[in-house]
Amino acid sequence: MNDDAIDAWLRVIRAPGLGSARIRQLLEHFGSITAVASASGSQLRAAGAPDAAIQWLAAPDRERLAADRAWLDAPDHHLLTCDSADFPALLQRAPRPAAALFVAGDPQWLWFAQIAIVGSRNPTDGGIANARDFSRALAKSGLVITSGLAEGIDAAAHRAALDAGHATVAVVATGPDLVYPARHRALADAIAAQGAIVSEYPPGTTPQRQHFPMRNRVIAGLALGTLVVEAAQRSGALITAREAAEAGREVFALPGSIHNPLARGCHRLIREGAALVESAPEIIEAMAPRAQELAAALRGRLDAARTPEAAPDSDWTAPTAADGEDADYRRLRAALGHDPVPIDVLAQRTGLTVETLSSMLILMELDGRVAASHGRYALTTRPEPRHAQHRAQAEDG
Amino acid sequence: MNDDAIDAWLRVIRAPGLGSARIRQLLEHFGSITAVASASGSQLRAAGAPDAAIQWLAAPDRERLAADRAWLDAPDHHLLTCDSADFPALLQRAPRPAAALFVAGDPQWLWFAQIAIVGSRNPTDGGIANARDFSRALAKSGLVITSGLAEGIDAAAHRAALDAGHATVAVVATGPDLVYPARHRALADAIAAQGAIVSEYPPGTTPQRQHFPMRNRVIAGLALGTLVVEAAQRSGALITAREAAEAGREVFALPGSIHNPLARGCHRLIREGAALVESAPEIIEAMAPRAQELAAALRGRLDAARTPEAAPDSDWTAPTAADGEDADYRRLRAALGHDPVPIDVLAQRTGLTVETLSSMLILMELDGRVAASHGRYALTTRPEPRHAQHRAQAEDG
Repeated sequence: MNDDAIDAWLRVIRAPGLGSARIRQLLEHFGSITAVASASGSQLRAAGAPDAAIQWLAAPDRERLAADRAWLDAPDHHLLTCDSADFPALLQRAPRPAAALFVAGDPQWLWFAQIAIVGSRNPTDGGIANARDFSRALAKSGLVITSGLAEGIDAAAHRAALDAGHATVAVVATGPDLVYPARHRALADAIAAQGAIVSEYPPGTTPQRQHFPMRNRVIAGLALGTLVVEAAQRSGALITAREAAEAGREVFALPGSIHNPLARGCHRLIREGAALVESAPEIIEAMAPRAQELAAALRGRLDAARTPEAAPDSDWTAPTAADGEDADYRRLRAALGHDPVPIDVLAQRTGLTVETLSSMLILMELDGRVAASHGRYALTTRPEPRHAQHRAQAEDG
Repeated sequence: MNDDAIDAWLRVIRAPGLGSARIRQLLEHFGSITAVASASGSQLRAAGAPDAAIQWLAAPDRERLAADRAWLDAPDHHLLTCDSADFPALLQRAPRPAAALFVAGDPQWLWFAQIAIVGSRNPTDGGIANARDFSRALAKSGLVITSGLAEGIDAAAHRAALDAGHATVAVVATGPDLVYPARHRALADAIAAQGAIVSEYPPGTTPQRQHFPMRNRVIAGLALGTLVVEAAQRSGALITAREAAEAGREVFALPGSIHNPLARGCHRLIREGAALVESAPEIIEAMAPRAQELAAALRGRLDAARTPEAAPDSDWTAPTAADGEDADYRRLRAALGHDPVPIDVLAQRTGLTVETLSSMLILMELDGRVAASHGRYALTTRPEPRHAQHRAQAEDG
């Protein structure tokens, strides 16, 4: 993205009264973000922009925009926008996706297969232990643990992933530079260093009540599935779970004693159709075909976005219809070895983009053909994939 | 049933190699139980009876049959046979029903709306407490608690119903005169006095491995629904629950901690479609429409069995098509008051059989129009029935 586009995005994101849905509408209407940012008042009014937004776009607070730009120019700070092929494809496919994400950390994790682990801010000790156990086991299986940086279940899930040496993604309801609750500052720093902090809101945004359900939608939209560990009858975790269900993702809930009020939310979800789970392998098994479907769909979408410039050092040429998908897989298998390799090396070796590789690797990981650890990939020694039938379907589709 | 028929039933029940299914086949083939018992060897062979049964029927152990008859002639001992209108209609409708039931106690309880409460023989303290709580609450709501007299959940469910002054039905895998486990002798006596002990097997039958799944089928077949409180992955309670599901009855399961091995069976049932329940009112609510459907179906069946002799003291005349079901309900409502009345008095007042009244009272009880306690019925003071819509459907059907 060029500087003008970045500045245009920052200006539009800051415009009062423009939420993600409205920004996406304007983007479609005007064709590009620079066209939105430089449209006249009457053009914007005709496109349905509210007055406050029109006034702001005509005369933005340049100091504030300079501060946003300064934040973005710092190391490991990123802006992923919905008009870019870098925008997480699963979130792009969600019913009410964000328009742009501020990221502190490595945005590659947003392209990995993620499982959201969410729950009560005041869990029982047993709930904390379960969150930690599931987070550790799922992270170990190659899934990225996504949660909301809240107290209780969220923090336990993030910490367990970090402690086990794996990446974790925290979607926050503040700007990416602020931490709520404040006592999670060290946790947030560790997540940014080892995973990613993600926010729909620009730097400096303080916690606001209405941002939390939006944050939950991003969590649900990023992840292949959502696990609710402990939750009261009315809680943010249930909102996340319902968003996940609406987005067609898997929802998992841990049952508990009928005398534990924090099992009620989980039981309610189970009655509504969530999968009752007792162990992490059940989640991995349930997600595998889903991941494969999505990976197949993603690959279709990504094939369009693939450009030769992504592999300047390779002898890559545009694939013909005849060698199609299998040729990509053959190339990737040839590029992988039993020594773990980072994804950018695979991109160089194969001439495929990081995004295409990510979706192919999701498939191979969940099939057991590839092991992922700390962002490096290796072929496993398994003689046969676990879900040969599912894979065959995905390869057909 | 006349003496000859009773003796014929006892002789057929004792015949080696004749299970309930085969007895029902022979009954259909020969038209009556006396015809089965007196059929020639070649007739029986042609009808598919095994040699051992044919030999026995030709030369039964008369001493043993006399002992069976003596047991049956003692007070409060009964034989309910599938060729009689007294045979519990819900069990009659089950996929693999018993051919006859030995009953010690009052067989009227088998015509009441029953909920089976089953579970582990080695439950946790929490499981015991849940069994007691649900049994007490469900018995108080007018349901008869049916279980298997086993240790653990079964015994806790029976005891809680008895302690609260309500009836309970124990279906046993031994003869009705034996108690397994033996230390439940006092419990069995209390159940016979306050409810009923039921067995498919003749007096003196000792516990045999293959009888327990059969016993579970009878429990599932008698009850409108089955609640599983705690159960291991492989257990008799799960067999009962699956029989209940196969018979089209409701199956309820209590969830528990993922760390409690005795919650596994319940979780498995929930995954298979059982209703996850946290409280007794949920069970009552879920069973109400089901009870109404069944009551409506039972009434249809019972109308056929209704005879004027059942009401010698009344001015009852056969209803015409014009006044039909509503006339019966009007008559029953007129016969009920706010002082509790036993069912035989209602039979005298209305001219309806006890069986017909039972099914009508199930409907009215579950609708909240009638309160039942210790076998006596009274109108409630509720101004409006709870499930007016369901009732209207049942009255249409």
